Amino acid sequence: MNENARQNYDLQPMEVNSERMLNDLHKFRRFGKLGAGVARPAFSDADVEARKWLAARMATAGLTPKFDAAGNLFGLPPGAGTFLLMGSHSDSQPEGGWLDGSYGVIAALEVARAAIEAGRPAPAVVSFQDEEGRFGHLTGSRVWAGQITLAEADAFVDQQGVGFADARSVFAEVVSDDPPKPENFSYFIEAHIEQGAVLDLDGQAVAAVTDIVGMQSVTVVIAGASNHAGTTPMRLRRDVVSCFAEIASRLEQLLPDPENPESVWTIGRLDLEPNAPSIIPGRIVFDVQWRDPSEDRLETIKTTVLNEIISVCKRRKLDVKADLSPRVRPTHMDKTLVSMIADGCQEIAPGRWRKMVSGALHDAANVSVRMPTAMVFVPSIGGISHNIAENTDEADLVAGLHVLSNTAARLLRAG
Amino acid sequence: MNENARQNYDLQPMEVNSERMLNDLHKFRRFGKLGAGVARPAFSDADVEARKWLAARMATAGLTPKFDAAGNLFGLPPGAGTFLLMGSHSDSQPEGGWLDGSYGVIAALEVARAAIEAGRPAPAVVSFQDEEGRFGHLTGSRVWAGQITLAEADAFVDQQGVGFADARSVFAEVVSDDPPKPENFSYFIEAHIEQGAVLDLDGQAVAAVTDIVGMQSVTVVIAGASNHAGTTPMRLRRDVVSCFAEIASRLEQLLPDPENPESVWTIGRLDLEPNAPSIIPGRIVFDVQWRDPSEDRLETIKTTVLNEIISVCKRRKLDVKADLSPRVRPTHMDKTLVSMIADGCQEIAPGRWRKMVSGALHDAANVSVRMPTAMVFVPSIGGISHNIAENTDEADLVAGLHVLSNTAARLLRAG
Repeated sequence: MNENARQNYDLQPMEVNSERMLNDLHKFRRFGKLGAGVARPAFSDADVEARKWLAARMATAGLTPKFDAAGNLFGLPPGAGTFLLMGSHSDSQPEGGWLDGSYGVIAALEVARAAIEAGRPAPAVVSFQDEEGRFGHLTGSRVWAGQITLAEADAFVDQQGVGFADARSVFAEVVSDDPPKPENFSYFIEAHIEQGAVLDLDGQAVAAVTDIVGMQSVTVVIAGASNHAGTTPMRLRRDVVSCFAEIASRLEQLLPDPENPESVWTIGRLDLEPNAPSIIPGRIVFDVQWRDPSEDRLETIKTTVLNEIISVCKRRKLDVKADLSPRVRPTHMDKTLVSMIADGCQEIAPGRWRKMVSGALHDAANVSVRMPTAMVFVPSIGGISHNIAENTDEADLVAGLHVLSNTAARLLRAG
Repeated sequence: MNENARQNYDLQPMEVNSERMLNDLHKFRRFGKLGAGVARPAFSDADVEARKWLAARMATAGLTPKFDAAGNLFGLPPGAGTFLLMGSHSDSQPEGGWLDGSYGVIAALEVARAAIEAGRPAPAVVSFQDEEGRFGHLTGSRVWAGQITLAEADAFVDQQGVGFADARSVFAEVVSDDPPKPENFSYFIEAHIEQGAVLDLDGQAVAAVTDIVGMQSVTVVIAGASNHAGTTPMRLRRDVVSCFAEIASRLEQLLPDPENPESVWTIGRLDLEPNAPSIIPGRIVFDVQWRDPSEDRLETIKTTVLNEIISVCKRRKLDVKADLSPRVRPTHMDKTLVSMIADGCQEIAPGRWRKMVSGALHDAANVSVRMPTAMVFVPSIGGISHNIAENTDEADLVAGLHVLSNTAARLLRAG
């Protein structure tokens, strides 16, 4: 490749080193290693070690590492002005996969390192903290993007009773006096594994994300009467299980939306009390959650869910309480960025890419409030994620890296 | 009352002292007292103290107390030959009511004491052990009636890992060399609270039990695919919750039997895995239990339950495993005894009694295999049992005592 071709950012990806990215990914996997996956929740020993290693790796690449007070780690390229920002998160689920978040961080590091080596403008790199929700959900990017204050996050407590304020103190000595703010950046691009089976089933290598779904859920408590399962005739029962079954069956008939396959709903949690074979349960608690990229459809689904719950309980004369969660609004990716990424996909993996909606939330949703934002997806084999078996073909990890690099080249040329 | 009347056992109840019975019941309630109820599981400190107190109380009444190796306590009246046996159990649920079992034991004690005081033939009294199933279910009467061996019971382990063999060693020093056996008795009558709401709702004071329901249950495990609730399109889901809802709704349509109101079915236990709001559950485990006094109907219900489970899972292409429990056969009370008890009910509470089926299992079911057996029920206020709020009006406790006494008089006269 001659010098002219190298400068032609609009047509050629930067000369990223895919072997080096894969090696870094495998090195990163050792922090909190758990079988094929990782146990690296935010601020765990494994996460602290991983972030310190990452900061050192940034420095070696020519980036200036800076921690902010929430535990987010940035790597800033040489130069002044606003930078393109790329990255994701590097904390994991309590027992999670090796690519969820880490892929986007390590891929961004490689793009920046390759650009610096080539003496070209480089993107900044970020690893957000607590995306997986040890304390909240997407805590680090929420604080950074200004959707909550650090003081509000400090009040979050994990399931063991540890507070965010306590947990983040582990980085107290390395927090920068002058951490980067959203206004220091022009665009954000996050590469991530799909965490679903759509790309894998269709044999596609990469995707340009157009929207991140919004979501809402309701926690339902239905109270009947707990009684002896032998001595209580059917006519005297106030059975919450039959009531639940009718509600769930009705929702299964009413909610599927064949014209909007990205519209999904789930009953994931259900608890009976007292939950013993010989006792008629007196109480059931369950969640119904729905996700959709359209705000209007989120509202329509909400109405259907609440109507069914209330009308079935009323007819059965059972007391019901339904607590709606705050709605997470859908996020629309920046159309210009999506179009650039789509062009990159077509160049790198012609005919083996698509545009798609993300059904999972991502740090990109928070950052999108502050700057034009978009995402690149690579497949998850079998759709498996949040599981140590999570994996992606190396060829697809490399395709995603090239799309990221290609997009960075277009943007940095444009910038 | 003159001597002639006193001897006329067929027409008059023995002169039982209802105040004395109520006082004994309240004294007994102190062992393991928990609010208005008791915490007195088999072989707990409270149960051991209670049984020792009961043995002393038997001795004071003129009965000879004898413990057998399983922890059952008998009080034998003076004289030789076979005796009428009356009683129930005095262990409780981990948090149970003060009358469940204890009522039948203390009422039998009063009938025996009154008979001995009057110089008449007296019944023997029993308190069976572990009716409430710390180790098995109805363990003491099962061993005593020969349905399992003591060695088999010794292999039972409670939820904390304590074995029956270990637990029963607490009585080692007081176990009789010559405990009574079923062949030492001619009949068994058990008085018990109903543990349901039928008598209370109908304003009845007492009942003659005709049958104890049989029961069977199935533990069902349905396996689908656990996945991310956001990234998995509805068409790719294998959702066990919707499958369960359809099964439960179908059973609600098919199982109710208006002509046999004592036929009941229950889904009392249900566990989802992993049971988190944002994860499509991959596995559901639930029990379906059914009870009926007819062996034929138990079989019919079993067929319906299994057919529905299998056909719904098959249509939804979900793997299912259904483990049937051994069937507990229905027990039919001795017709002659039921008729005597019914006559006693009509005499003591004219128009305020009924014949009924017991929906709960009782020691009487085990003993019935060895001798003619019957039961007397008194109401449970609001149908509440296995709960510290369990209670019965004093007037009804006394009515039940008089029916028990009346029946003893008829049988001892007849004997």
